[in-house]
Amino acid sequence: MGVVLPLDEPRPERSSGIEKLSGLVAANMQRVNALILSRVGSDVEMIPEVANHLISSGGKRIRPMLTLAGGMLSDYEGDGDVKLAAAVEFMHTATLLHDDVVDESDMRRGKNAARLVWGNAASVLVGDFLLGQAFKMMVEVGSLESLDILATAAAVIAEGEVLQLSTAKNTATSEDDYLAVVRAKTAELFAAACEVGPAMAGRPKAERAACRSYGMNLGIAFQLIDDALDYGGSEAKLGKKVGDDFREGKITLPIVLAFRRGDDEERAFWTRALVEGGAVDGDLERALQILTHHEALRDTLLRARHYGSMARDALGLFPPSPIKAALLETVDFVVERAH
Amino acid sequence: MGVVLPLDEPRPERSSGIEKLSGLVAANMQRVNALILSRVGSDVEMIPEVANHLISSGGKRIRPMLTLAGGMLSDYEGDGDVKLAAAVEFMHTATLLHDDVVDESDMRRGKNAARLVWGNAASVLVGDFLLGQAFKMMVEVGSLESLDILATAAAVIAEGEVLQLSTAKNTATSEDDYLAVVRAKTAELFAAACEVGPAMAGRPKAERAACRSYGMNLGIAFQLIDDALDYGGSEAKLGKKVGDDFREGKITLPIVLAFRRGDDEERAFWTRALVEGGAVDGDLERALQILTHHEALRDTLLRARHYGSMARDALGLFPPSPIKAALLETVDFVVERAH
Repeated sequence: MGVVLPLDEPRPERSSGIEKLSGLVAANMQRVNALILSRVGSDVEMIPEVANHLISSGGKRIRPMLTLAGGMLSDYEGDGDVKLAAAVEFMHTATLLHDDVVDESDMRRGKNAARLVWGNAASVLVGDFLLGQAFKMMVEVGSLESLDILATAAAVIAEGEVLQLSTAKNTATSEDDYLAVVRAKTAELFAAACEVGPAMAGRPKAERAACRSYGMNLGIAFQLIDDALDYGGSEAKLGKKVGDDFREGKITLPIVLAFRRGDDEERAFWTRALVEGGAVDGDLERALQILTHHEALRDTLLRARHYGSMARDALGLFPPSPIKAALLETVDFVVERAH
Repeated sequence: MGVVLPLDEPRPERSSGIEKLSGLVAANMQRVNALILSRVGSDVEMIPEVANHLISSGGKRIRPMLTLAGGMLSDYEGDGDVKLAAAVEFMHTATLLHDDVVDESDMRRGKNAARLVWGNAASVLVGDFLLGQAFKMMVEVGSLESLDILATAAAVIAEGEVLQLSTAKNTATSEDDYLAVVRAKTAELFAAACEVGPAMAGRPKAERAACRSYGMNLGIAFQLIDDALDYGGSEAKLGKKVGDDFREGKITLPIVLAFRRGDDEERAFWTRALVEGGAVDGDLERALQILTHHEALRDTLLRARHYGSMARDALGLFPPSPIKAALLETVDFVVERAH
């Protein structure tokens, strides 16, 4: 499986990796990674086992890198950014553990989901432990503003997940409804990760808001690209099988668009495959046909570009610098990885 | 069902209610209750629904009362105690929601468990939301010491729950192992609830430690009485059915004691009923016979008295006051409610 996702527009002439970003934050990321390993430790053996299963499975750690980058962009000089970056990654890992239970997923990052190996109970509780450890690290840093940003993010993320429960099986979900879920569930943590650097550095409100907006829009673009890749990416890029969202009956942006643009017969297909009966053999091919016919994947990528463009513009008030250039390139990486 | 739990010792001549405590904190508890109601609100309808199902089902709210009492005992004069008390109750409620998923429980406080009504996913996520809201309230109070105490408690509680996963089905659990779980899972939050008052009031370390010790030992006593009541209390007192722990195969202190004191035939019974086959008709009666024969329920109550006594002594360094008297009476209430 794996279809080409064509975009009519010429692609911008930019390099599109995150090498520049990872290079600039490399020294501090080593400290973040060491901290993650040490804070996942517990006398209760199952905790590091479960947590390391996920942590060592090679996520890109883009969120903690963003926290460090936000600090650099703000000329932050303390070392709280390292602890907050680790805390952000712990919050993310906790969310993944709980998500797998909520979605009853079987795979995560190309491995069996933790809940399949250790059970739902362990996934819920180790997630809780990581959240507790995340807050402990934040408290050690002692910045009440950063604590506020990240505690708010924790509540918003959970709220977004609950909201998703009610939209999850609803093919009539509107694009706005869907975006509300994406903002809360995915983009809020990107936004918070980017905002804590300038907050700790005591930068003016406008700079905090700019970093937050960069993270929020980058996060939305990131999720939309993920949605599209599920119907057209390679397994290696996804860490899960092509069509997983479809088989799990997830209503993502490509579906939202195709459902609105389709006829009665197509709508009946989506409802049967995603909600009522579940997908059967041949359904994924049919879904790809409909998505292509309505240009739903292409337009999902264009929407992602739109948010990527907003992310880039959000950084406009910062003067040129290597870290700013790296953050701009990160947008390209996120948006262009669909190709 | 409902057997008498006889104690050979004469019962101390004390009144044993929490009327004194609830009277002294009544005005602030009204503010706590209002805060709980307002902070459980969300545009996402399912959140207040699920949370209120549990919150309105009439827990005793002993933990937030302890937080307010700790403040009074320390002559705390701000209003952070109200927010922290609500945060403590939210942490407790979040734990209950996650526990029900972990234990696959059907009943909670005499009602259907939330997971039966709204599903596991909602229970996990609304728990996460309440935890996020709890941290937001703590951040608003702005006491880093209190944040430290409560964030540590959150991590320790989760750690204790994971520890329990590994002891849950092990009849060879020692009394010390079991106590380690009780300390982490139940008593740590009592301890933290009691410690934040003196911490916010900037009281000397010895007073903080005294309040913490009071809460820790009270929490242990509380859990042990719960363990005993499961085999001999009334449903009204328990909010669940007599024998629920037994039917769920929970290894509690009465079992730990009876298992060690029993013969091979009895040990085979416990292993079959609690671990391997699950309990069948007549097993609960047989369990009660064995527990009575080895005086396991009586000794569980005596152990609870021991911790109750430690809790009382922990407050020794405080001069007499109405709130101190109320806290001492609360120990009696907890220990004597088995009768």
